[in-house]
Amino acid sequence: MTSPQDMLEVAYREARQGLAEGGIPIGAALFAVDGTLLGSGHNRRVQEDDPSIHAETDAFRAAGRQRDYRSTVMVTTLSPCWYCSGLVRQFNIGAVLIGEARTFSGGHEWLAEYGVSVTVLDDDRCADMMREFIAARPGLWNEDIGVAQ
Amino acid sequence: MTSPQDMLEVAYREARQGLAEGGIPIGAALFAVDGTLLGSGHNRRVQEDDPSIHAETDAFRAAGRQRDYRSTVMVTTLSPCWYCSGLVRQFNIGAVLIGEARTFSGGHEWLAEYGVSVTVLDDDRCADMMREFIAARPGLWNEDIGVAQ
Repeated sequence: MTSPQDMLEVAYREARQGLAEGGIPIGAALFAVDGTLLGSGHNRRVQEDDPSIHAETDAFRAAGRQRDYRSTVMVTTLSPCWYCSGLVRQFNIGAVLIGEARTFSGGHEWLAEYGVSVTVLDDDRCADMMREFIAARPGLWNEDIGVAQ
Repeated sequence: MTSPQDMLEVAYREARQGLAEGGIPIGAALFAVDGTLLGSGHNRRVQEDDPSIHAETDAFRAAGRQRDYRSTVMVTTLSPCWYCSGLVRQFNIGAVLIGEARTFSGGHEWLAEYGVSVTVLDDDRCADMMREFIAARPGLWNEDIGVAQ
């Protein structure tokens, strides 16, 4: 069995890759219940000039068409925004594992109300990475979460 | 000013194009408040083997990076699922214009609770198109809304 920290590591590396590409450092991965990695990805707003590619949607896309998401785990470095929380709810993804929710809190409590297993690891590396990014690029961050400027 | 029916027509044509491509017939378009078309698209699950491209996300992508969505209108042939409703909420899209909510009802009432202007046109063409598709391809339809089979 893959540990939560091992799964988060995959998402964290995706986030770091995104940062190295000049993008927004949020990463995600979708795992099967046995720990098999189905797909991983990161935010690509800057890299592909595409506002629709959040980390979770990129990981979901990378996993391809699946017949049943109920036993899958979506791991993300940051609390999922409403867009990505809606993805989890619509496709009945069974569990969400979150690096941190200190710098941004999206819809993870709403997901828990609807029966999704939600775990917040409160990981310092994820929080530090995001805090530094938000301080350095506030305009880009606000654009990514729909805060008009 | 572009009328609601004119805007729906753009989404409906996208849906028909998707159907002609062998895909799921749901179309959408994002308009500026003055009726300017910012982007349109349709579901591409089958065409691109990509579960992340619903009609609304495709239209949102086609519109490119915008600084402020509050005055935009998302038009869609079908009530937006939770994934697409989450998109509307996160990016503060001001209004949603829906062809029909007879064959599927997603998160449009939830959006209205959060202040989004929601209009359901209850259009027969949209409803007939979707009903025929669901009857013909129930497995594909269930896959697209995350109903495990």
